[in-house]
Amino acid sequence: MINFTVGPVQSSDAVRAIGAEQVPYFRTTEFSDVMLENERLMKKFSHATEDSRVVFLTCSGSGGMETAIMNTLTKKDKALVINGGSFGERFVELLTLHEIPFDEIKIEHGKALKPEQLAPYDGKGYTAFLLQKHETSTGVHYDINLVSDFCKRNGCFLIVDTISTFLCDSFDMAALDAGVMITGSQKALACPPGIAVMVLAPSALKRIGNTKCCCQYFDLKLALKNQERGQTPWTPAVGILRQINIRLKEINAAGGAEAEIERTAKLAHYFRNKLKEHHLPFEIISESLSNAVTPLHPTTQSAYEIFLKIKDEYGMWICPNGGDMKDSVFRVGHIGCLTEADYDKLIEAFIDMQARRFI
Amino acid sequence: MINFTVGPVQSSDAVRAIGAEQVPYFRTTEFSDVMLENERLMKKFSHATEDSRVVFLTCSGSGGMETAIMNTLTKKDKALVINGGSFGERFVELLTLHEIPFDEIKIEHGKALKPEQLAPYDGKGYTAFLLQKHETSTGVHYDINLVSDFCKRNGCFLIVDTISTFLCDSFDMAALDAGVMITGSQKALACPPGIAVMVLAPSALKRIGNTKCCCQYFDLKLALKNQERGQTPWTPAVGILRQINIRLKEINAAGGAEAEIERTAKLAHYFRNKLKEHHLPFEIISESLSNAVTPLHPTTQSAYEIFLKIKDEYGMWICPNGGDMKDSVFRVGHIGCLTEADYDKLIEAFIDMQARRFI
Repeated sequence: MINFTVGPVQSSDAVRAIGAEQVPYFRTTEFSDVMLENERLMKKFSHATEDSRVVFLTCSGSGGMETAIMNTLTKKDKALVINGGSFGERFVELLTLHEIPFDEIKIEHGKALKPEQLAPYDGKGYTAFLLQKHETSTGVHYDINLVSDFCKRNGCFLIVDTISTFLCDSFDMAALDAGVMITGSQKALACPPGIAVMVLAPSALKRIGNTKCCCQYFDLKLALKNQERGQTPWTPAVGILRQINIRLKEINAAGGAEAEIERTAKLAHYFRNKLKEHHLPFEIISESLSNAVTPLHPTTQSAYEIFLKIKDEYGMWICPNGGDMKDSVFRVGHIGCLTEADYDKLIEAFIDMQARRFI
Repeated sequence: MINFTVGPVQSSDAVRAIGAEQVPYFRTTEFSDVMLENERLMKKFSHATEDSRVVFLTCSGSGGMETAIMNTLTKKDKALVINGGSFGERFVELLTLHEIPFDEIKIEHGKALKPEQLAPYDGKGYTAFLLQKHETSTGVHYDINLVSDFCKRNGCFLIVDTISTFLCDSFDMAALDAGVMITGSQKALACPPGIAVMVLAPSALKRIGNTKCCCQYFDLKLALKNQERGQTPWTPAVGILRQINIRLKEINAAGGAEAEIERTAKLAHYFRNKLKEHHLPFEIISESLSNAVTPLHPTTQSAYEIFLKIKDEYGMWICPNGGDMKDSVFRVGHIGCLTEADYDKLIEAFIDMQARRFI
């Protein structure tokens, strides 16, 4: 099966080789060294300041999103959140559950964020801002500079979900003055799912110190204290953390975050050009694309039926959407260990489906 | 390295082969089938009633412990908890954090639970009981029948942490009338760490339905709803869940839970007999042993120094203790893919250390 979803994605041979090994005992200096190197490389690739910190939580990216809210926001905050798809909606649910006062900026699916949508909120006393840099469900890559400028003007603490855009599109945590960035092992880190990674700026560390977390498992005070010596408070997904280490070193050796972003951009452009060239019956639904994924609306067949047909008859996974986008949108990812030849096979499958009058 | 710790432990070749595979996309009927089979086999091996349910959470066993408390207990409960080591202490911390009224029965490290320690709490209005069936930190295997009888007499809801005893010592969830049992992927399931498994009796399902969970990621209402169709609310550690599937089927094919318990008991007895035979300077510190682990107090050298020496000079991991047991106790595990020949090598190492006058 060729995997074009947005996670889990295909891993390199070196990452899979670690998966085949016995998982070592981890309360050792050997494992601590792995964790400290992971922290160092994550800071480098996210362009975090030297005094930033990194924690690795055994959970999904959504667990990381909730951890950010539970550890850095309180009822005294007044948050602003961008809601343009399933993951923006999740931030809204989490702020509601944790009783953080907030307002949401609803964005139509597929649409970019415009300066005039932020303007009404200027100078209104907001203390925090949450958004997906890339709303994975609709494939919209928001203008993070616009949001960062708003936050700098208004003194807002910025929480950025970069789960599906980290290593796919440029990101400079220090320049943006972001407080928290969140990603997951199964996106462009191209490891098995199970680990959420959070980079925490000094502004976040200060908030964490002043916030009582309602859940011990996700208490970042405990995670940070343990990570000082490269450890975790609870048994982590040791195998995946070792895979992340190999993968971060692979990226570093190949030129770092910028080279990986460039590689992903090339694959995305290759696929998008092929789509045009063959006049396939799909419309790109996002007006602001990430390199991570191409979100498509098929005009002649249900998106979900196309997902099933490609899985069952062509041996490939494209990424289905859920909820009210189930029949109207599917996505083709460009993250993980993929090549142009893989996209040639996918385009061939689409052409074949067209010849069979399925699309 | 030979791994005699209590987790992560050594995996079978079939489990490691899955670790080498690409992780498949999981919002599919194929993955749902894996998850539903995992649920069926977990129920079988824990002797749960047919109307019990199972959830698989991407977190550590401690995450499972906290999830049990957050989803089944409220401020209206009056809980009783056994605290005889690090994990009993964790239950105490969690009950405190979540503001569940409770009393604790403190047990001296290494000591069993006696009927006279429970007697004072009879008829005092307790509504819930929490314990480690096996306190992993001290290697004490508590008398679960004593606790179960107390719970039946007093109408207590019983939460059992079986993290390190499941598949090592006999456990019959239905006969004990336990509400929740918790285990982890990296103990006798002998898969990489990253998944906590919870078996939930109808009494637990009823409590979950009436409890508001303060953390969305650990909300069992969402987990149960999704598991109805073999799915999870958030991206789970798909690779580990597939490894658990292979492992559960291996155990089933080899005779089920009872055969696995028997196999573990044989290894434990083999090692303990060898210890006696060679008059090694170690005292077994638990008066009620599990088959999972042998906890030892070395009389001639620091336990932690022995752990380091065995790791660095003999290529094996034994399990160190933390906190105030760091120098006085180490443990030798009997879970995972181990053979009598492995124990021969460990005994040889001890004999060699004795000849070198290190112990």
